[in-house]
Amino acid sequence: MSEPEGALTVEELAALAGGRVVSGDGRGVRVSRVASVEAAGEGDVTFVEDAKLFDAARRGRASCLIAPTGSALEGPACVIEAERPKLAFALAAAALQRPRSQRAAGVHPTAQVAGGAKLGEGVHVGAHAVIEEGAEVGEGARVLAGVYVGAGARVGRGCVLHPGVVLYEGVTLGERVTLHAGVVVGADGFGYVRDDAGVYHKFPQVGTVVIEDAVEVGANTCIDRGALGETRIGRGTKIDNLVQVAHNVQIGERVVIAAQTGISGSTVIESDAVIGGQVGMGDHARVLSGAVIGSQAGVLPGKIVRPGVWWGTPVQPLAEYKRLNALWGRLPRMREEVEELKRQVRELQSRIGEEGGER
Amino acid sequence: MSEPEGALTVEELAALAGGRVVSGDGRGVRVSRVASVEAAGEGDVTFVEDAKLFDAARRGRASCLIAPTGSALEGPACVIEAERPKLAFALAAAALQRPRSQRAAGVHPTAQVAGGAKLGEGVHVGAHAVIEEGAEVGEGARVLAGVYVGAGARVGRGCVLHPGVVLYEGVTLGERVTLHAGVVVGADGFGYVRDDAGVYHKFPQVGTVVIEDAVEVGANTCIDRGALGETRIGRGTKIDNLVQVAHNVQIGERVVIAAQTGISGSTVIESDAVIGGQVGMGDHARVLSGAVIGSQAGVLPGKIVRPGVWWGTPVQPLAEYKRLNALWGRLPRMREEVEELKRQVRELQSRIGEEGGER
Amino acid sequence: MSEPEGALTVEELAALAGGRVVSGDGRGVRVSRVASVEAAGEGDVTFVEDAKLFDAARRGRASCLIAPTGSALEGPACVIEAERPKLAFALAAAALQRPRSQRAAGVHPTAQVAGGAKLGEGVHVGAHAVIEEGAEVGEGARVLAGVYVGAGARVGRGCVLHPGVVLYEGVTLGERVTLHAGVVVGADGFGYVRDDAGVYHKFPQVGTVVIEDAVEVGANTCIDRGALGETRIGRGTKIDNLVQVAHNVQIGERVVIAAQTGISGSTVIESDAVIGGQVGMGDHARVLSGAVIGSQAGVLPGKIVRPGVWWGTPVQPLAEYKRLNALWGRLPRMREEVEELKRQVRELQSRIGEEGGER
Repeated sequence: MSEPEGALTVEELAALAGGRVVSGDGRGVRVSRVASVEAAGEGDVTFVEDAKLFDAARRGRASCLIAPTGSALEGPACVIEAERPKLAFALAAAALQRPRSQRAAGVHPTAQVAGGAKLGEGVHVGAHAVIEEGAEVGEGARVLAGVYVGAGARVGRGCVLHPGVVLYEGVTLGERVTLHAGVVVGADGFGYVRDDAGVYHKFPQVGTVVIEDAVEVGANTCIDRGALGETRIGRGTKIDNLVQVAHNVQIGERVVIAAQTGISGSTVIESDAVIGGQVGMGDHARVLSGAVIGSQAGVLPGKIVRPGVWWGTPVQPLAEYKRLNALWGRLPRMREEVEELKRQVRELQSRIGEEGGER
Repeated sequence: MSEPEGALTVEELAALAGGRVVSGDGRGVRVSRVASVEAAGEGDVTFVEDAKLFDAARRGRASCLIAPTGSALEGPACVIEAERPKLAFALAAAALQRPRSQRAAGVHPTAQVAGGAKLGEGVHVGAHAVIEEGAEVGEGARVLAGVYVGAGARVGRGCVLHPGVVLYEGVTLGERVTLHAGVVVGADGFGYVRDDAGVYHKFPQVGTVVIEDAVEVGANTCIDRGALGETRIGRGTKIDNLVQVAHNVQIGERVVIAAQTGISGSTVIESDAVIGGQVGMGDHARVLSGAVIGSQAGVLPGKIVRPGVWWGTPVQPLAEYKRLNALWGRLPRMREEVEELKRQVRELQSRIGEEGGER
Repeated sequence: MSEPEGALTVEELAALAGGRVVSGDGRGVRVSRVASVEAAGEGDVTFVEDAKLFDAARRGRASCLIAPTGSALEGPACVIEAERPKLAFALAAAALQRPRSQRAAGVHPTAQVAGGAKLGEGVHVGAHAVIEEGAEVGEGARVLAGVYVGAGARVGRGCVLHPGVVLYEGVTLGERVTLHAGVVVGADGFGYVRDDAGVYHKFPQVGTVVIEDAVEVGANTCIDRGALGETRIGRGTKIDNLVQVAHNVQIGERVVIAAQTGISGSTVIESDAVIGGQVGMGDHARVLSGAVIGSQAGVLPGKIVRPGVWWGTPVQPLAEYKRLNALWGRLPRMREEVEELKRQVRELQSRIGEEGGER
């Protein structure tokens, strides 16, 4: 097997991943790819965290295994120990890069780059991409096939825009932002004013979108421009596929939002919140830092969601939700108990009546 | 600052927006853009509706302020009074147009327009757009980069198709329809017939889609073609991002549908209904004119939703939903009360038993 | 009317659709299209299943009517009887093909096909499509305008990729797979590892996607690649629009999934399951063969859903859900009953107290 580009020695990898080589020839063995314990072979690095999987890891054929500190595993060619093997593995993967990220610099002859657009050094522009007047694409960014970068939009250094991404005019991406295929940034927000005849007139949607550094956005997600102000996604935030982010939404840093969640206009999600999938949030709500909202939950308009774990529609603290849900499941029993009580009370009444004589 | 194209005098704007200049040099001052009270500067028009914001509006630097009739505000260069300032502001914005709407007429050299397609006067066809045989694009329509207009599809006058829109063959758009990036119109509906071996065979999806005048559809929304008949969206209806409209759905005029709502096959939504986000509707349901359905609600197949406000799954009148939801929150209390009653009744039984002697 | 291509005699059609000509000149009459009873005219085949519609079918102007065995209908030019007319109609439609499926073989001059890509015989590649290095497209497949086929991806014989589809590198489609416009296959799964400073590092998403034969996927649906392993969709499975399939999900054969459903990572859906719209499934859940899950239901992480019909969040057997839902609606009545019981018990207590004297 010829040595793949990007290969690192195990010792180099350990340094980058925050671990320590404890077994094997760390300077001689090279790795170039990540793989699961089962699938890993020569040139691959894998990891194990759960002691139940140590045996499988020992039997594996990886060139390098990342294992928990003190696990004293042997077996594959080399072992790196790390406090948090999964994190070290993620860092290792980032160091090894994937081939698909390695696009040659240059503009494909079929791409349409406006005369007034500015491309930084090492930029890749794929086939049939369109970059309009006044747009700027930073150093090393990769604008893949069929991407549309609207007039005056700014794409920071090292961004990756997968095929079919659409940036409407004037939106801004920071550095190392990744947008997956079909993402739409900066379409008009959904705002209308109804006149007395019932006709809807569009409220102007002339604001913009700012996506800060190191944000990743999943396929076919939509992030609308602000009506008059801006929609903002903070640094390091990660958004899954098919998510809806409405106009003027403000999302902080290091927020995680799972697939198909929808966030209505002007809602604020503070830094370090975690939002499950298919969650719906009304407008002008506020999710405080440290809040975790379970999948399919519903946040009413204007609601403030405090730190802690929340669930259900409308959202409640998880403990409360569980308690209510358990009672919900016991409703038939409660129904029977009430019927039994009614029967018993009728009997008591009749006996008292008999005994007491009155009524 | 050079005078921007499209600028209007405040007096012209007042006439178009249905207001009256009450202060300032309405003939001399020109505006060209809309902005928020805080951001507005020279050349901008803004609006204020809430008396709490009058002070901020007075201090603003807009060239023109639209304020409620009788508010007698002064401060920015010019003041227009209107009965409904937000509506007047929306009308003003429409009059001022956004630059991105102003695309030069002409067909980009990379666009592929079939010999048999017909383009009206002043049509803009962007880079890499494809217009197939027999398609027609009406006067002044803008078919932006990368749009696909299938064979025989018709695009009415003044439509705007944002990058990446796909029209399958034969669908029809009325005049001034706006489709945001990634909208798919006319994909096959989801219909199969299962044979005795469990294999699904496609039920033909050979109908079409008709979208009437002045409809706006948000990014990545999907509107499927009818199976044998048509899917229809009525005049002036507004649909948000990531909405699913299944085959043979009939939507009336001036309907509003928020993001991520899904409407199953053959369901009818009558004119002037309002549908929240993430609502799900089963097939063959009917939403009557005047019904308002809250976000995340679920409408069962075949259900008729009458005028009024509805909520929950399955949908209930809002008042009923609120009442039930309050009781739901009080279930733990009710549970305790039932336990207390059981205890009390047991005690009564035992005392009666003692007293009465029998049983 | 000139004879359309693809026309078949009614007798040929009956053989292909599993029916029997019982009336009319089955060898002389030719049909080429499917239509509804009301819209059908010369050259069209239609069907009727419900006896209530027999009269309308008799009055129709179709060239051919498919009717239930033994219905002895007459009227249109020809009648085919079949055990299951709707199924026979679906098979007839497949035999007649739609014109839009008939794309001339060849590569459009604007398409970009890498030197190392392999195209089978009769392949159609539309305008502005991109096929990267090492990709393979099987015999007769149609890669429509603007489609992106990533490096090393494999597209089986007879596949149809509608405009704007994006296949990331290395994914595999079996034979006769249909992907509607805007489908994204193989984008990165949503997986991160948080470090002690709260920063999210991407867990490698370097697995792949395998879609087996005869799968159909609706517009703008997203199917993510496996993190280290693969995401798999089994033969004959049908997926609607705007569905989210996360990394490492395993979907069996002949599964049906309606629009806007979301399936979290590593969840397994066994063959022949049926999933409604807007369903949410947590990760590592398992839906067993024969399970039917109603729309908007929520499946908790790790949950096993057994055969039968399920509903609600968290999912419950439909019968249980209905029972609980009915009790939910009767909560106000139960509340009143508990209040009445409290009143009665107080009265009993007071009377016993009076009578008994003690306490």
